[in-house]
Amino acid sequence: MAEKSSELKLLSAWFSPMALRAKIALNIKGLEYENVEEDFNSKSHLLLRSNPVHKKVPVLIHGEKSICESSIIVQYIDEVWSNNNAPSILPQHAYDSAIARFWVSYIDEKLFVCAKNIQDAGKSDEEKKPHSEQLEEEMLVRLEEAFNKCSDKKPFFGGNNIGLIDIALGSFLPVLGLIEEINGRMVLVEDKFPGLINWAVNFAANPAVAGTFPEIDKLILFGKTLLKKMGYCL
Amino acid sequence: MAEKSSELKLLSAWFSPMALRAKIALNIKGLEYENVEEDFNSKSHLLLRSNPVHKKVPVLIHGEKSICESSIIVQYIDEVWSNNNAPSILPQHAYDSAIARFWVSYIDEKLFVCAKNIQDAGKSDEEKKPHSEQLEEEMLVRLEEAFNKCSDKKPFFGGNNIGLIDIALGSFLPVLGLIEEINGRMVLVEDKFPGLINWAVNFAANPAVAGTFPEIDKLILFGKTLLKKMGYCL
Repeated sequence: MAEKSSELKLLSAWFSPMALRAKIALNIKGLEYENVEEDFNSKSHLLLRSNPVHKKVPVLIHGEKSICESSIIVQYIDEVWSNNNAPSILPQHAYDSAIARFWVSYIDEKLFVCAKNIQDAGKSDEEKKPHSEQLEEEMLVRLEEAFNKCSDKKPFFGGNNIGLIDIALGSFLPVLGLIEEINGRMVLVEDKFPGLINWAVNFAANPAVAGTFPEIDKLILFGKTLLKKMGYCL
Repeated sequence: MAEKSSELKLLSAWFSPMALRAKIALNIKGLEYENVEEDFNSKSHLLLRSNPVHKKVPVLIHGEKSICESSIIVQYIDEVWSNNNAPSILPQHAYDSAIARFWVSYIDEKLFVCAKNIQDAGKSDEEKKPHSEQLEEEMLVRLEEAFNKCSDKKPFFGGNNIGLIDIALGSFLPVLGLIEEINGRMVLVEDKFPGLINWAVNFAANPAVAGTFPEIDKLILFGKTLLKKMGYCL
């Protein structure tokens, strides 16, 4: 049964891949929520009060409770709404959950850090090059292999349904679009990453995901101008 | 019922706080295991095969399965041996689990990174100073507050039993001993951190923890010589 929207509030930013994760998890569970767009020039009292340690989006506010950090929010949503007929986001078996958490940690600690280095306005093209190579020759190669293992010829890392890895990596797709624009060429190409290409198409078309991605043109404009000025990185 | 030791193998290093986490979780569940000490000058084939992405300890080998990364190992142990009469490591309620995961992430991403900066042999005392201040004036202050909230006047972050935050922060105690030695003064002092001091005493005396800490003199010697040479950090 859908929660009343007054019960669930997401402090968010339209360009944030981490907020995107929370939105997709809420959609998977069919939960109504109020999306509260934060202004980074003037963070709201609600954000500062509900995430005093990091002062960052996303924050899920569930009644009187605040839950911070994207992967923790996704697991919270999965645990609280485990019996509402929507598919599970975490696998059922402990080993599969450990594998999912492993790749989420890889995506957070390696992939997003690498993307940040590529997008860093302060770095020269020469400085960005090893990071681009690392992304294309190592990280996406590993994730292609992981997809083939985890999906077992089904559409998603999570099998027939979107799971924890799908959400974590799926939130990277708009960032990848931005990197492709910065590099002036495609990165996720079919001959190198046939599994990930199919996965990305299926992911973006899934009802829980469709409509959640930021408009790519708006994101590119934002990525090239405002983020540089503000010192933020996607 | 205790598993046969041939079923459970921990690839470990005596000085590693991350391996310490796995050992404590195994002890809490009363599990027998074979501890395999890795040689960092010559990593074993088993380590390279079972953790090909990071090539790091700890790795828990459970039958044919390999589980990597300390917090993931702890959660795996808790989930697999949830019915063996040992206490749960994760809280029972989703919100409490989210809070526990939040602080573990804080400890991993902030506290250990800060400690690494303080211990970094390449940094001058002047460069280390802001990191020492951040540790003492911000991070431990936040963790003292978190302890008072989470423990609810009981001995541990997890209440009456050692939980996920206890294991994550407890593995930092030998590192803190090393920092105190490097700085030439105590950091965890009673007037500033009365809750954490009591917690640390209770934690170190717990049967699941006693005997797992590396000998502090050996650790200091190791920290001051070998780690510098090898470019590793605790």
